[in-house]
Amino acid sequence: MEFKACQIAALIGGTVDGDPEATVSNFAKIEDARPGDITFLANPKYTHHIYSTKASIVLVRNDFEATETVNATLLRVADPYAVLSVLLEHASQALNPLPTGVEQPSFVADGVTVPEDAYVGAFAYVAQGVRMGRGVKIYPQAYVGANVEIGEGTIVYPGAKIYHGCKIGARCIIHAGAVVGADGFGFAPLPDGSYHKIPQIGIVTIGDNVEIGANTTIDRATMGTTTIGAGTKLDNLIQAAHNSSIGSNTVIAAQTGIAGSTKIGDNCMIGGQVGFAGHITVGNRVEIGAQSGIPNNVADGSRLMGYPAVGAGDFARQAVHLKRLGDLFARVAKLEKRSL
Amino acid sequence: MEFKACQIAALIGGTVDGDPEATVSNFAKIEDARPGDITFLANPKYTHHIYSTKASIVLVRNDFEATETVNATLLRVADPYAVLSVLLEHASQALNPLPTGVEQPSFVADGVTVPEDAYVGAFAYVAQGVRMGRGVKIYPQAYVGANVEIGEGTIVYPGAKIYHGCKIGARCIIHAGAVVGADGFGFAPLPDGSYHKIPQIGIVTIGDNVEIGANTTIDRATMGTTTIGAGTKLDNLIQAAHNSSIGSNTVIAAQTGIAGSTKIGDNCMIGGQVGFAGHITVGNRVEIGAQSGIPNNVADGSRLMGYPAVGAGDFARQAVHLKRLGDLFARVAKLEKRSL
Amino acid sequence: MEFKACQIAALIGGTVDGDPEATVSNFAKIEDARPGDITFLANPKYTHHIYSTKASIVLVRNDFEATETVNATLLRVADPYAVLSVLLEHASQALNPLPTGVEQPSFVADGVTVPEDAYVGAFAYVAQGVRMGRGVKIYPQAYVGANVEIGEGTIVYPGAKIYHGCKIGARCIIHAGAVVGADGFGFAPLPDGSYHKIPQIGIVTIGDNVEIGANTTIDRATMGTTTIGAGTKLDNLIQAAHNSSIGSNTVIAAQTGIAGSTKIGDNCMIGGQVGFAGHITVGNRVEIGAQSGIPNNVADGSRLMGYPAVGAGDFARQAVHLKRLGDLFARVAKLEKRSL
Repeated sequence: MEFKACQIAALIGGTVDGDPEATVSNFAKIEDARPGDITFLANPKYTHHIYSTKASIVLVRNDFEATETVNATLLRVADPYAVLSVLLEHASQALNPLPTGVEQPSFVADGVTVPEDAYVGAFAYVAQGVRMGRGVKIYPQAYVGANVEIGEGTIVYPGAKIYHGCKIGARCIIHAGAVVGADGFGFAPLPDGSYHKIPQIGIVTIGDNVEIGANTTIDRATMGTTTIGAGTKLDNLIQAAHNSSIGSNTVIAAQTGIAGSTKIGDNCMIGGQVGFAGHITVGNRVEIGAQSGIPNNVADGSRLMGYPAVGAGDFARQAVHLKRLGDLFARVAKLEKRSL
Repeated sequence: MEFKACQIAALIGGTVDGDPEATVSNFAKIEDARPGDITFLANPKYTHHIYSTKASIVLVRNDFEATETVNATLLRVADPYAVLSVLLEHASQALNPLPTGVEQPSFVADGVTVPEDAYVGAFAYVAQGVRMGRGVKIYPQAYVGANVEIGEGTIVYPGAKIYHGCKIGARCIIHAGAVVGADGFGFAPLPDGSYHKIPQIGIVTIGDNVEIGANTTIDRATMGTTTIGAGTKLDNLIQAAHNSSIGSNTVIAAQTGIAGSTKIGDNCMIGGQVGFAGHITVGNRVEIGAQSGIPNNVADGSRLMGYPAVGAGDFARQAVHLKRLGDLFARVAKLEKRSL
Repeated sequence: MEFKACQIAALIGGTVDGDPEATVSNFAKIEDARPGDITFLANPKYTHHIYSTKASIVLVRNDFEATETVNATLLRVADPYAVLSVLLEHASQALNPLPTGVEQPSFVADGVTVPEDAYVGAFAYVAQGVRMGRGVKIYPQAYVGANVEIGEGTIVYPGAKIYHGCKIGARCIIHAGAVVGADGFGFAPLPDGSYHKIPQIGIVTIGDNVEIGANTTIDRATMGTTTIGAGTKLDNLIQAAHNSSIGSNTVIAAQTGIAGSTKIGDNCMIGGQVGFAGHITVGNRVEIGAQSGIPNNVADGSRLMGYPAVGAGDFARQAVHLKRLGDLFARVAKLEKRSL
């Protein structure tokens, strides 16, 4: 598919600054773009690339002022990143159209209704009592256990597994290999040193507009529910243990682990490989740096970093002090010598 | 299902303190419970909740003495948590009954016998030479490679993968997405900087009563076997590398990694996101805090924490000292000034 | 299969020092070996085992000189580990022969050609437009999305998932549960605190001779491609985020995470559980210790360790200083007292 600058401007409502006939067929980052690509400039840090980019069209803010010659045709819009996102969505749907219908062989238990605009891929398993909303897409080799509920428009990608009884909201995306509702890790120690499994009879409840990354695992509750709030986005390979709870519109990067019964608030931003201890409460609007270890409760609006975590500023100072620690030992030794 | 306090007491042998007709149909944690729920009090930290809980029935120790008014009916037993566990087991089997039979389409190689009370779900693959004990449950989309042995009563949940030749004990639970027996990470460097793959011809041997969490990976040995001892419980997203060995009745929390040839003893408790270096030996009854890094051998009964790990007490002191480190720099600077 | 020392020597060109009729049927590590096993001695650290090993045959360097009695038959070769590797390869192919043909039921979209010597296992899904080279092996329950290209001789193990449009080189191995090409973690914040998904329309490009471990996840690019260079080996449970790039012949141990747009060079050796921040560049021939956190660019040939990472030597010194930190506080307090 090829588009001209003037066509895109008509579609999205921007103004062309350059050749209205400039033609593009692909997207690229500003530093990688080649002729025929469209790109965007949103972060001022990347402004210098606009003078060397080979892109044919660059989306820029309405108030962008070039200080050198720009070869690309500019498309001036209010919010280049938002416009890019709209264009990408069109492209994405063209590249990877959502399928419809029931492929064979698949397994849909007796009594389960597949809405007309839904999809059940080959080798997908939909157990008894499953209820799925309009437009739900169950990709090949996915597993939907007994009595699971899936809200409308939710996509379950290939091989994702949802254990019995879990509730998934509308317009969610569950990526390949994610496991929702496996047993929580609960065992009672016996006098002989062995362990007795505590049955995990709770569920997992996932709100609307949640994205769950590839191979992420969210365990079912012992009793009650493990909860992921609406609008929350989980990256790949994350662990959310039984009875943990994550609020709304919180984003968590890959490989982070949340131990049992821990509650994380709304609108938090959590880095990758962070570990949360069990039975703690993390407030709203909390930001936590990558690889941090969080042993205790965290107040609303905190910014933490480190293992064990401290304030982000303190972490930076600690790192500096650690580098000078050898020097400090030498200084103290010198003082000791002098004071003899 | 509804049960009365007197019925439960008859079933489990406790004594009712309150209304014998109190009726429950669900389980809940003491702080979350609503009317119609049964809950329990085992940890003294939670005692204050018993005066405000909305639960209809609370399991308590025989010697529990209320210091305020309790609205719930109490069921006095020797060990509330153990009794709860028995009740949960009944509920769990009712909510998620174990299936039986061979669903179609599934793949069972010629010559493989599926015992009468076993289950092979749709889209499961059971390769040639597989031997499975009575009551083995192979859920949909699970893969059991050639010549694998699975002991009686073991459950292989949806999409778990067991490579050829591995041996799984009796009454194990292998959760969705777990991978047992993928190749160990072994490569020989060549003079040109590239790597030659060392074939991994060993197996994985898993003892009886082992639980393997969702998306956990246990690599096959280069030669010989990677071993998980009887009664050991592994949480989700754990990595056990080739020729590693974990003893009996050891519990390991999520996202911990064990490098090649490392041996961990019996009755250990390992936190989440811990890393073990390769070729080390960790003794019995060792406790290791979350996110620790273990570079060297660990003696029996050690309690470690940190990166690199030190004694748990030393770790706490280090954390305090680190917080005061800026202060120490200032104190030394002051001394230096004074000593001029 | 049984082999005599003289037969193996004829096969691989070594010289027998001992009984040419010594017979072996299995491989083992030198410390674990039993009669009937062949083993090897490459690492001098293990030399003492040769005097007690129960192995029937030991591969040793041509210049090995025994200082005590050796019971095993020695097979002298230039490079014992390389020879072992050749023997293991023979054994591996006998134990786990590569399958051929199309098993039923499987899903191969109309118009896709399965080369004669390729394999598509039962319940595998091969979508429209897929192109696969000679000898490609798609194991059961694997998913190959629309328009994916797979080079000749590549093995896709059970349950691995490759999303649409990705390009996989020749002679790669993708282990069970690995996910290639799931959406990158890209969201634009909206004024109300919610997030808008940025469509991820790029792909993943994997070079020749790459190995991808079990349950490792490699996200597709937002635009352009996420890249894994030729000869690179990734262990299990690794996360490579969108638009990240790893060079050639780099080895990365399990559970390491690489954030978005980060570039790692050629011939690097990265330990397990390492975290790389986003948008950084790591040079060639870099070595990074396990569990390190890499916040910034790294120069060619660096050796780093720690969180945040410092030079490997500095890390060791820091650890020593940390252990003596309590002592330092005491020394400073003493000086302060004295200086009053």
